[in-house]
Amino acid sequence: VLGTAPTAFAQDPLHSWNEGSAKAAILDFVDKTTAEDSDDFVAVEDRIAVFDNDGTLWPENPLPFQLIFAIDELKRLAPKHPEWKQDKLLAAALSGDVATLKEDVMGSLKQLLIATHSGITTDQFNQRVEDWMATAKHPRFDRHYTDLVYQPMLEVLVYLRANGYRTFIVSGGGADFMRVWADQTYGIPSEQTIGSIGEVKFEIRDGVPVLIKQAAISFIDDKEGKPVAIHRQVGRRPVVAFGNSDGDKAMLEWTTMARSPSLGVIVHHTDAEREYAYDKSPQSSGKLIEALADAPKRGWVVVDMAKDWNQVFPDENAPSAG
Amino acid sequence: VLGTAPTAFAQDPLHSWNEGSAKAAILDFVDKTTAEDSDDFVAVEDRIAVFDNDGTLWPENPLPFQLIFAIDELKRLAPKHPEWKQDKLLAAALSGDVATLKEDVMGSLKQLLIATHSGITTDQFNQRVEDWMATAKHPRFDRHYTDLVYQPMLEVLVYLRANGYRTFIVSGGGADFMRVWADQTYGIPSEQTIGSIGEVKFEIRDGVPVLIKQAAISFIDDKEGKPVAIHRQVGRRPVVAFGNSDGDKAMLEWTTMARSPSLGVIVHHTDAEREYAYDKSPQSSGKLIEALADAPKRGWVVVDMAKDWNQVFPDENAPSAG
Ligand SMILES: [Ca+2]
Ligand SMILES: [Ca+2]
Repeated sequence: VLGTAPTAFAQDPLHSWNEGSAKAAILDFVDKTTAEDSDDFVAVEDRIAVFDNDGTLWPENPLPFQLIFAIDELKRLAPKHPEWKQDKLLAAALSGDVATLKEDVMGSLKQLLIATHSGITTDQFNQRVEDWMATAKHPRFDRHYTDLVYQPMLEVLVYLRANGYRTFIVSGGGADFMRVWADQTYGIPSEQTIGSIGEVKFEIRDGVPVLIKQAAISFIDDKEGKPVAIHRQVGRRPVVAFGNSDGDKAMLEWTTMARSPSLGVIVHHTDAEREYAYDKSPQSSGKLIEALADAPKRGWVVVDMAKDWNQVFPDENAPSAG
Repeated sequence: VLGTAPTAFAQDPLHSWNEGSAKAAILDFVDKTTAEDSDDFVAVEDRIAVFDNDGTLWPENPLPFQLIFAIDELKRLAPKHPEWKQDKLLAAALSGDVATLKEDVMGSLKQLLIATHSGITTDQFNQRVEDWMATAKHPRFDRHYTDLVYQPMLEVLVYLRANGYRTFIVSGGGADFMRVWADQTYGIPSEQTIGSIGEVKFEIRDGVPVLIKQAAISFIDDKEGKPVAIHRQVGRRPVVAFGNSDGDKAMLEWTTMARSPSLGVIVHHTDAEREYAYDKSPQSSGKLIEALADAPKRGWVVVDMAKDWNQVFPDENAPSAG
């Protein structure tokens, strides 16, 4: 792969995409927005593309990966915290009672975040994420989580950037969690990685300035929060948005409605064999009903993972996109 | 100037800076952090430089310029809002009673922001800022406000970027206000312009998605809020910070303490003749006592505006930095 990738890229920047309407829509959009003589030319400063993360750039099963990280951390730290067994959701996480956690995914995530993501410095947290990413493996695929990003989406990121687009993550996941590995994994720098935000407090401890992660969550980057987060952190309306669930509907609307040219894309999980198949009744997060129903009238491209992607994950030992 | 600028830049990237310790410190820092064989080499991804705005990149007298904008807007909109005359601070702003406003600069700014910066879409707000910037002129210098940025600081921004640094604004001013003109004026894109944040609400009005600016202010980017904002939006600790007041002390500490190499710079307003002279008793914002006292022990460079800068504002008709 190392030897053939540059050639494959020169021949076809989206080589993991099968020929079809989805691939054609992406290629056509980039062509028409970057050709200076095109009516749809987009100035370089406006070439902003936003991507949901869980279910769009990498899987969200059997649970969102940040939740798996939190559960692993909870178990690692539990011997020092006997009080956690008194908390229903934390006890469920510790005993592997996934059914209870799935009853309230956002609530579980919040409890777990407070237990495992607060009371430490941002540097300590970064180290914990780094350690986990280097060791933990996905239960089904037996690969490190950062090796399970979608190869076709890595190609889209690289292709957009090669055409002057700035690529941003806009995810319900924690910004602090994603920034540890997003640069190396996706080639997206920390200031372009946007997510949910926990409070931090500035302190000087023994002459060393630190930011202490607090229990309070100050912003949840989901649903109508996504256009708000884009406004706060990007300050411009994107022209390209990729998502996979109803949590991305507002972001897709903000990017594409009453706006031309623009490109909205939904990654539809249709591939139980190579990945997972779900929409209206997902096993974990990723419910997709309204955005899928609106896709035809909004002109959103729906990617059929089973048909449109000839490869889902990068080859083992493939170089990273960063 | 148009003809001579490129040559001047090639000869001396900081040509508006007089020879002296401040200029030497900036040049030395960039040299040592970008030479690959240097012990102080900084990887490109970590080359992050943050700049306060009011009093660091442009003046803050007779009032911070965003406050002047808000007062002008208040007057323009007042005929439709007779209720504003019942509010002490708004009445003071309308009657030109600057003394009352200065008694409570942050409070006045907040009241004025609510009256003039909310209840409209972000697009409408951007248009108002653009219209004002194109017409309003500074009462003393009789030039447009965006023409009153500091020429020596424009040179620092260009010089840092030419050496692989990403430049960010981290200001107490409103992000929405600055982003309208920061790109063209400073060459700093909207996602690198960080400031105080007002709430916005996503809505679809007659098929058009909009963000409505709300009265609530969700984040004030000042003092300990500056390292917090840098963490939220940049996600990495900077190695260069420029500020001019105690509001920048925490940002300077976060950037430089227990960290080498790093560069902290304070712009000290010592030039009443060409600009303004103030520190512990400023006419408007910009109180500088603690950060100046700490400068020697922290190794922060103090710029003496009168001695270190041979030019303060760009020549008339000079090209912009963007
Ligand atoms: Ca998702
Ligand atoms: Ca200032």
